[in-house]
Amino acid sequence: MLNFDFYAPARILFGKDSHKQIGELLKPLTGKALLHYGGGSIKKNGIYDAVTASLAASGISYVELGGVVPNPRLSLVHEGIALCREKGVDLILAVGGGSAIDSAKAIAMGAYYDGDVWDIYEQNKSIDKALPVATILTIPAAGSESSGDTVITNEEKQLKLGYGSPRLRPLLSVINPEFFYTLPKNQIANGVADMMSHVFERYFTNTTHTDLTDGLCETVLRTIMRNAPIVLNDPADYDAWSEVGFGGTVAHNGLVGMGRAQDWACHMMEHELSAIYDVAHGAGLAVLTPAWMEYVYRDNINMFVQFAVNVMGVDGSFRDPDAIVREGIDRLRRFFRRMELPSTLSGLGIDGSRLEEMAKKATGAAFGEEYPIGGLKKLGWQDVLAIYKLAQ
Amino acid sequence: MLNFDFYAPARILFGKDSHKQIGELLKPLTGKALLHYGGGSIKKNGIYDAVTASLAASGISYVELGGVVPNPRLSLVHEGIALCREKGVDLILAVGGGSAIDSAKAIAMGAYYDGDVWDIYEQNKSIDKALPVATILTIPAAGSESSGDTVITNEEKQLKLGYGSPRLRPLLSVINPEFFYTLPKNQIANGVADMMSHVFERYFTNTTHTDLTDGLCETVLRTIMRNAPIVLNDPADYDAWSEVGFGGTVAHNGLVGMGRAQDWACHMMEHELSAIYDVAHGAGLAVLTPAWMEYVYRDNINMFVQFAVNVMGVDGSFRDPDAIVREGIDRLRRFFRRMELPSTLSGLGIDGSRLEEMAKKATGAAFGEEYPIGGLKKLGWQDVLAIYKLAQ
Repeated sequence: MLNFDFYAPARILFGKDSHKQIGELLKPLTGKALLHYGGGSIKKNGIYDAVTASLAASGISYVELGGVVPNPRLSLVHEGIALCREKGVDLILAVGGGSAIDSAKAIAMGAYYDGDVWDIYEQNKSIDKALPVATILTIPAAGSESSGDTVITNEEKQLKLGYGSPRLRPLLSVINPEFFYTLPKNQIANGVADMMSHVFERYFTNTTHTDLTDGLCETVLRTIMRNAPIVLNDPADYDAWSEVGFGGTVAHNGLVGMGRAQDWACHMMEHELSAIYDVAHGAGLAVLTPAWMEYVYRDNINMFVQFAVNVMGVDGSFRDPDAIVREGIDRLRRFFRRMELPSTLSGLGIDGSRLEEMAKKATGAAFGEEYPIGGLKKLGWQDVLAIYKLAQ
Repeated sequence: MLNFDFYAPARILFGKDSHKQIGELLKPLTGKALLHYGGGSIKKNGIYDAVTASLAASGISYVELGGVVPNPRLSLVHEGIALCREKGVDLILAVGGGSAIDSAKAIAMGAYYDGDVWDIYEQNKSIDKALPVATILTIPAAGSESSGDTVITNEEKQLKLGYGSPRLRPLLSVINPEFFYTLPKNQIANGVADMMSHVFERYFTNTTHTDLTDGLCETVLRTIMRNAPIVLNDPADYDAWSEVGFGGTVAHNGLVGMGRAQDWACHMMEHELSAIYDVAHGAGLAVLTPAWMEYVYRDNINMFVQFAVNVMGVDGSFRDPDAIVREGIDRLRRFFRRMELPSTLSGLGIDGSRLEEMAKKATGAAFGEEYPIGGLKKLGWQDVLAIYKLAQ
């Protein structure tokens, strides 16, 4: 186990009607809030009305900024920063999924930054101040409701970059599984692939003596995989949504990765797909993850045997390790298909024309010096290209 | 799954040399600290010197109060409160196990309470202010380094009472597994029994649809039980201590019990033993827990079959549920014996003379109205007496 520094201060209010407490809880914390959200869905499904009713009941003053899109854009972040400064906003309440929350975090740090907030992403600048962020989660996926991470797309530069700071961890997140009932199937499936990937990126490691976090990772994965097909089939199943929703939060609050060298190659490879083709992050991960596994597993075959047996339920006896791992990867592919997720780049509408460009961007080779990505196996741009080709 | 409110803001700094950062981390937070600890062990094993060196290097001003004993006493808490007021202490740094930390929490809330701090325990009063508490853990057991709980013994009244508030959660806890190397065998074993009990109290429930937290509980238990015999045999095994130490923190930071009705009958029954006979809390739990299981398992036999199979490794096929559960309980008893823990009340030096008195105190019957204890099965004083007798 490696040394670690665990800090997950976000208070999680979970369950039916939990959103009704938001006004009361925020009242002592804000004089003027920014209500930040996406498109019209929360207005159609009643969530907007329920949340604003709670804010009104507590007499909370707020301004609004909607319009967050998947792969949230820098331009809207700029707009939000200007609005916060102009109106004297002191807290941001994001209502939505990872996109709205990530956009809120960008605005929260941008409000105190003297310059273009994109600098912070591009130069990985340290920040010492950000507006407090609270969230009401409407799509379980990104885990942004408890993490200090934010990913923003610079649409002019066709770049999608992530940034993380403990100062960006939400102070409070409300998770009401009933809010997930109206999600379309593809959003459910993309969210599930994303939260599973958050565990995979931490789970696959060369660090040894990791009994506890191995077990935590495996439990979160098994729980999500057991319950996700249930909600895909019946999006109004409260109990199954509770497991998936809670699982998505635990997947990304940091705990399951403590003391382990982490990987994150799949996330970095996927960000290139999303930046250029604007594909859903989870769908991209579902395509790339099995291909990545095939490409890297021989570098730590014991770890992948453990995955196949403990997570995918492969019988680990009387077979050679390669066969066990391949059966595990195959079962993962079948699980993603059962979730109606694409299994190839072409299924995502991505042809072979820009694979090399993306591989070079993902590893920095496009911008001068190459920085190999990944933890379990270090991947240069040619490795990344090989994985993209495996996923075609 | 039940609605829940999860809040675990304690930052956990974990690993070799992590204590060397304490001065630097506390510097911005305190003008004058109280250094609170137990007997002489931290002076003999070098921990006191290492911690005070870090405080001195950062120029932190502090006063000291040692002398905390297991089952920490109200009288020392009173002394600490007076000291904090007199010296203008603004933060308490507890160096020790659960006793030092629980005592620090009592002082932290007592410093702002206008009256005897014992009132807060006895009347379960709500508090809105407490001094911040940081901890350096030297005995992994109580989980107090991340919880908002404190248990204090009123030696005059022979009463041991617990109290919990989110305001008592430490802001920072340092866990260096090397600090556990000099623990005597009985403290190692008592600590292990205590942390396992923190999971048991949350795990055994009648709440349904608890896939994720079932799995988290089972993983924490398996990890502790796999590694505890290793450290008992070789107290300088860093890797095994890392698993046990981290496991003890996760066991009690709240996460594994979220959304579940909890039990806590064993803890309440044990507090009576400790209050009268001053036995080690963990040893008392190791004696009472299997007896409690025997007495209650038929009320939710599926839960206990799951425990026997998933935690104790009992083969769940081709046998009747009673036999599976009894084998699971038997294996737990064998595990405690392997940890060289007592298995009966007489092994703790407790005879039958005051069992009824303790049963009536545990359930409130001694003070007028009876309040049955426990969650999975409600226990009146006659049930508690029966469990004490099973444990004789």
